[in-house]
Amino acid sequence: MLLRLRSSASLAELEAVRALARELGYRARSVGERLDLLQLEGSDALVGGPDHPARFLDLSAVAEVLDRGAARELWQRAPGRAATVVEVAGVPIGGDGVVIIAGPCAVEDRERLLEVARGVRAAGAVLLRGGAYKPRSSPYSFQGLGEPGLALLAEARAETGLGIVTEVLDPRDVERVGLVADMYQVGARSMANFALLTELGRTQKPVLLKRGFAATVEELLGAAEYILAGGNEQVVLCERGVRSFDRVTRNLLDVGAIAHLAGATHLPILVDPSHAAGRADLVPRLARARPAAGAHGLVIEVHTAPEEAHSDGRQAIDLATLQQVVDDARALAELDGRVLVTRPTGHSSAHTRAPKRSCPS
Amino acid sequence: MLLRLRSSASLAELEAVRALARELGYRARSVGERLDLLQLEGSDALVGGPDHPARFLDLSAVAEVLDRGAARELWQRAPGRAATVVEVAGVPIGGDGVVIIAGPCAVEDRERLLEVARGVRAAGAVLLRGGAYKPRSSPYSFQGLGEPGLALLAEARAETGLGIVTEVLDPRDVERVGLVADMYQVGARSMANFALLTELGRTQKPVLLKRGFAATVEELLGAAEYILAGGNEQVVLCERGVRSFDRVTRNLLDVGAIAHLAGATHLPILVDPSHAAGRADLVPRLARARPAAGAHGLVIEVHTAPEEAHSDGRQAIDLATLQQVVDDARALAELDGRVLVTRPTGHSSAHTRAPKRSCPS
Amino acid sequence: MLLRLRSSASLAELEAVRALARELGYRARSVGERLDLLQLEGSDALVGGPDHPARFLDLSAVAEVLDRGAARELWQRAPGRAATVVEVAGVPIGGDGVVIIAGPCAVEDRERLLEVARGVRAAGAVLLRGGAYKPRSSPYSFQGLGEPGLALLAEARAETGLGIVTEVLDPRDVERVGLVADMYQVGARSMANFALLTELGRTQKPVLLKRGFAATVEELLGAAEYILAGGNEQVVLCERGVRSFDRVTRNLLDVGAIAHLAGATHLPILVDPSHAAGRADLVPRLARARPAAGAHGLVIEVHTAPEEAHSDGRQAIDLATLQQVVDDARALAELDGRVLVTRPTGHSSAHTRAPKRSCPS
Amino acid sequence: MLLRLRSSASLAELEAVRALARELGYRARSVGERLDLLQLEGSDALVGGPDHPARFLDLSAVAEVLDRGAARELWQRAPGRAATVVEVAGVPIGGDGVVIIAGPCAVEDRERLLEVARGVRAAGAVLLRGGAYKPRSSPYSFQGLGEPGLALLAEARAETGLGIVTEVLDPRDVERVGLVADMYQVGARSMANFALLTELGRTQKPVLLKRGFAATVEELLGAAEYILAGGNEQVVLCERGVRSFDRVTRNLLDVGAIAHLAGATHLPILVDPSHAAGRADLVPRLARARPAAGAHGLVIEVHTAPEEAHSDGRQAIDLATLQQVVDDARALAELDGRVLVTRPTGHSSAHTRAPKRSCPS
Repeated sequence: MLLRLRSSASLAELEAVRALARELGYRARSVGERLDLLQLEGSDALVGGPDHPARFLDLSAVAEVLDRGAARELWQRAPGRAATVVEVAGVPIGGDGVVIIAGPCAVEDRERLLEVARGVRAAGAVLLRGGAYKPRSSPYSFQGLGEPGLALLAEARAETGLGIVTEVLDPRDVERVGLVADMYQVGARSMANFALLTELGRTQKPVLLKRGFAATVEELLGAAEYILAGGNEQVVLCERGVRSFDRVTRNLLDVGAIAHLAGATHLPILVDPSHAAGRADLVPRLARARPAAGAHGLVIEVHTAPEEAHSDGRQAIDLATLQQVVDDARALAELDGRVLVTRPTGHSSAHTRAPKRSCPS
Repeated sequence: MLLRLRSSASLAELEAVRALARELGYRARSVGERLDLLQLEGSDALVGGPDHPARFLDLSAVAEVLDRGAARELWQRAPGRAATVVEVAGVPIGGDGVVIIAGPCAVEDRERLLEVARGVRAAGAVLLRGGAYKPRSSPYSFQGLGEPGLALLAEARAETGLGIVTEVLDPRDVERVGLVADMYQVGARSMANFALLTELGRTQKPVLLKRGFAATVEELLGAAEYILAGGNEQVVLCERGVRSFDRVTRNLLDVGAIAHLAGATHLPILVDPSHAAGRADLVPRLARARPAAGAHGLVIEVHTAPEEAHSDGRQAIDLATLQQVVDDARALAELDGRVLVTRPTGHSSAHTRAPKRSCPS
Repeated sequence: MLLRLRSSASLAELEAVRALARELGYRARSVGERLDLLQLEGSDALVGGPDHPARFLDLSAVAEVLDRGAARELWQRAPGRAATVVEVAGVPIGGDGVVIIAGPCAVEDRERLLEVARGVRAAGAVLLRGGAYKPRSSPYSFQGLGEPGLALLAEARAETGLGIVTEVLDPRDVERVGLVADMYQVGARSMANFALLTELGRTQKPVLLKRGFAATVEELLGAAEYILAGGNEQVVLCERGVRSFDRVTRNLLDVGAIAHLAGATHLPILVDPSHAAGRADLVPRLARARPAAGAHGLVIEVHTAPEEAHSDGRQAIDLATLQQVVDDARALAELDGRVLVTRPTGHSSAHTRAPKRSCPS
Repeated sequence: MLLRLRSSASLAELEAVRALARELGYRARSVGERLDLLQLEGSDALVGGPDHPARFLDLSAVAEVLDRGAARELWQRAPGRAATVVEVAGVPIGGDGVVIIAGPCAVEDRERLLEVARGVRAAGAVLLRGGAYKPRSSPYSFQGLGEPGLALLAEARAETGLGIVTEVLDPRDVERVGLVADMYQVGARSMANFALLTELGRTQKPVLLKRGFAATVEELLGAAEYILAGGNEQVVLCERGVRSFDRVTRNLLDVGAIAHLAGATHLPILVDPSHAAGRADLVPRLARARPAAGAHGLVIEVHTAPEEAHSDGRQAIDLATLQQVVDDARALAELDGRVLVTRPTGHSSAHTRAPKRSCPS
């Protein structure tokens, strides 16, 4: 059972709620950082007393008794609810716009990063992605540059004006990464890292949440809910392919899942064709699946010398190919009455504004 | 070892080849119906004598010794080889055209079939699909009308001029189904039915070969090779989604596989968004994945009263939605400099012509 | 709707049933070869008239109105129903016995086959498996010896007294293969070949039905039902691993599925550790999963010189390892109060008897 | 390139190594907490100079140049290397023993926990499992009692003498959970939480590492390597089923993976039949797959009133069933010349000793 409390309730009134919960055998638990919600749980809650909701409603502090399903609605599309538009360094993600986020898999060295950053900006990307912390299957693989990598990203932003999307792996790094990131990335391997998600829910910074490679759509939305329930409404979902049995591509881009999500949630959705394909030659084709799914943009790995990359070089496209992907995305967007989002004039600041909502849909 | 024989070779010269094969411990086997190929197999073949190829080449009947890999090239895209265009009842599949094939999952009754046939023609579909023989997981489910269903399909063709695409399940039905079908369909469950594929290789009628729901791309191409090696070059591949762990869609449309195939084979490729989605509401979106994959058309289930269908009604779209899918496909095709194929003028005959090839690509 | 008819019903009485069916808009269809069952289908059947069952029951020919679920019960375990024991060349499969079926993947040559046959008999196997017809992903791979292979199997039976389990791929081969086979094998790729299953349902010979590598348990049981509904009760299921994402084994042995089946069906179940592992070194270990699943025996690939096999040599174990597997299976069977089935005394005949049922369980 | 350094090397000698690395364009990185290993990485490292290893060996501080593969050997079984036996609260895991670890999914309340703890001890389990921190797909599901749950586990240990296996989700909780846990559990969702693994590598406490539900065997071993490379050798692997397409079980127990691991690694391996089955009725059967895989024990969910559990009650078995599982495991172990490990006499302390190794195998 989930209670919504009146904001006007006094401490004594709130204590009466907790006293009744104890009496009836429930454990009371807060939901994220939201003081206005109280989750009641316990052995008895499963069988429940048919009169329990009414008894709680009798208390002056209780505004409403929501069921568990109601609590889930934070990600749900609902009549009258506007689609969420998340603004990252002046760039709106969601609504009728289509954004291109591009950059290297990992930040490797200063010159290369700046070269890529200038190149992706020239090609039409509006945000720069690049990892300073990399999740790698082996402890002996390149783990990213860490803090020096963050500093390089800050420098790239200063020079190019592109907002930064970068991965955070550890809840203890959220603050540190947040000093540079305009948008946190939660990678596929971290989608079920609930401690990390909870920590990100406590920030007011946009989060790019990638679907785990064997996560159901329901689990992806559950992960989003962890962030939303904490009070951070700036969540953008990202499909990057699921693991399957065939080997011609690295993963299998789940276009159907995105198509489903487009109808189910008000959150923006991006497509990552690079991790799905795992092969640079297929990235431009898979990038064209975005309109099929009704998604709001692309996240693409780019490298100026893919064959020299420390990680994932096989799937990074070069700048000329990126230009082709951007042009193609523009044409496809226009076909749908959408518009390819261009870089905001004036350098963005690292401080993002509150999320805006587009007209209802 | 695979030998290519001179067409000018006499029977006596051919017998010399077989005699040497026996002497060296090989079994000689013909490849499909191709008289010019001879496959040599056997325990000894695996270890092989290093001088065996030379000894065969010494014989006057042997033009060339091909290895097993070379034999696989029938589906392979090769420099200078034109992309295959398969013509079905006057409709070209492949090349720069985009075709829409539509119709009910199963032929159910005369009135309904004619109604759907007229409707899909009006919407812009150029071939009518519909099953008279249905593969069903339970012996108690509706198995299709069988021969009476074929007769109804013939009637629908006579009235609408649309060529017929219909499934064949049993090698013993190839001739009977071929009396009506302009294009055989091999369903996902039959993709590895090698007896059926071999039988279809002996015909000169187009085959729509659907990927098994857990078949690798390599296995799909191997299945195509069975038909091609038999001498029937009119094979069109079809991706219809693979089985996966999530449940929001019935199958997972493997856009990456099609994108890979587009570069790997000269055969045309279609997309079936209906079986992939398993939900009518997602079909229009998944239909938009066709250009992403560089595919040559769509196969779509349509029903005038989806809720009354005997099978798969949940995924069939209505005629109004089909119109929208066709219009969308036209716009997307034009964006790529392709053209939506329209119905040939004059009624098609059931006799299809030899496959044509478009300009090399 | 499924009707059970009285065996005493006259043709006129039966015609009254069909007339009512027509009147109410149903199509009447017989169920396999069973004269006592009549399946009613059609658009109207889906909505149904609430009084339809009663109207049919009013007819003298109708003994009972079964729903579709009831029709499925042929494979279902039910209170009071004995577990099925299928007898193959004198060897009982099912009940409390544990059988070992072994042999080469494919019949290759006379000497080798006889050598393996003698070897597997000596090791304790009670039936000989070996393919004369092989389903292969490429048309250029060794397809089996065909009829000469069948003749060699017959010779192996004559010499060793072991009953023969061999694959049939094509409904047109059922009679020919049946001249030699004591038990038909339906391979994983043919599990959904409903024409083949229907044909096998018309025989009275045991069928070893292997699960498709991406078939659900429900689909496996549906395939069994095709054979059972045709009147052939001698079906043995076989789990051989499903396709998954990891590569350390060829397939993933679904022990849970067998454990589930053991409770759900009265049909015997075998385990094929060879195709599951795809690696000879793991076969003895996976063979030990049989008791976990409550299965009734093992199907194992054996080769006297695995490295020389034309197909699947990588997963075939040698005779010494087979001996170890058999000894291990005996010890595990005894732990459970089961008994390893030994070869029947006297040579078996190719004519199998009617299936017996063990005591209820 | 991976260098092994002499423990006698001076700081000046070590600096010479780093200087050469810089000169040649490598980044030097330490491996976990091991001072004796130095990982060299960088763009140049990928092409490498053929004389680079020799130049490093010339330096007095370098004992040996290991390649990346060599670095992986921490989990690898090697000739002469003993199988690892991890001792948890006096209970050895690995070698010839078979252990039963049992308990509730989550710690719920004091009475129930103590009741279960007494029960599982009486049945023959030697360690108590139970989660105080639970990873849940929804933020509104019961997340575990947290610290009060740890206190209850400590109380259960004090009363029953059973060592505690409990999950840690957050690297910030490692110390806190370690005050009570005799063995940390890393759940399937955290297997790729590299920050957590690294933190656990810094402790000297046993870790039960569960395979992610879509992790390859290689990824599981990579995760183990993170802990091992940090200097903590007390890692026990656990297979709990992978995600697949069928629904009769919750997951698919990958017996083949365990069978492979048994030959590939010296680390002990446990089987969790509860999460694999997801159904209490199948747990006893799947528990019997342990000897198939050559695993060293079972992790089982038990509840005294499964229908009242807050989480996963559907898969928890009751105490009577646990007794049957333990008896069965004992019989199966004895068949293999193994022995079911019994509870150490005297209460265990929370301080675990250094890992022991059994005789080489």
